[in-house]
Amino acid sequence: MKAKTAHYTEIEPTRFDGGPAKGVDGRVLIGKADGAQNFCMRLFVVDPGGHTPKHSHGWEHEIFIHAGEGHMLLGGETRPVSAGAAVFIPPGMEHQIQNTGRQPLMVVCLVPAAAPEL
Amino acid sequence: MKAKTAHYTEIEPTRFDGGPAKGVDGRVLIGKADGAQNFCMRLFVVDPGGHTPKHSHGWEHEIFIHAGEGHMLLGGETRPVSAGAAVFIPPGMEHQIQNTGRQPLMVVCLVPAAAPEL
Repeated sequence: MKAKTAHYTEIEPTRFDGGPAKGVDGRVLIGKADGAQNFCMRLFVVDPGGHTPKHSHGWEHEIFIHAGEGHMLLGGETRPVSAGAAVFIPPGMEHQIQNTGRQPLMVVCLVPAAAPEL
Repeated sequence: MKAKTAHYTEIEPTRFDGGPAKGVDGRVLIGKADGAQNFCMRLFVVDPGGHTPKHSHGWEHEIFIHAGEGHMLLGGETRPVSAGAAVFIPPGMEHQIQNTGRQPLMVVCLVPAAAPEL
């Protein structure tokens, strides 16, 4: 199996803008196509004022905030997050991330192999 | 199960400095103690001039470079990496990361649940 190195800007984004998402670019950084069998690394870039869908599902998220600041909705709670923060969202918990800052909010978000990659 | 939010600076580091590692602070950001069953998120902060051990093992790494710049040794190859890069290291490949810059090199590195957390 081969190693992969790629800057996120080398990977074409998928735009999510409309319906439950607003102003979000999503990318699979490391996934099954690279040989990753156990979990998948994605990057979401959320525009100022934008947000991911408010939803829940049967798998967990492990998140690292690479840049920016925002609010994380976790069940009934809202918590501020900023660059350098880690977030664990257990399976089944409703969640959303909102960019409350002036810069892009950059969110590295990992899911187990059974979940959709994007 | 509860959600977790923590800035990395709130988590006490373990120092690796001597023997095969030089100038490295390691932290488990999200692991089994948080309820993470499938994979584990760690952060390594490598001092300028420092490096992780040159080694190999039977599990993969999924890496995101949060800050700084360095060289990644991957099998017989050396590749430059910098903030915003993703790296997939397949199981069994010898690897090491070296900080070649003047700032701390901050490496988010994930392993599957069967691997040691730190």
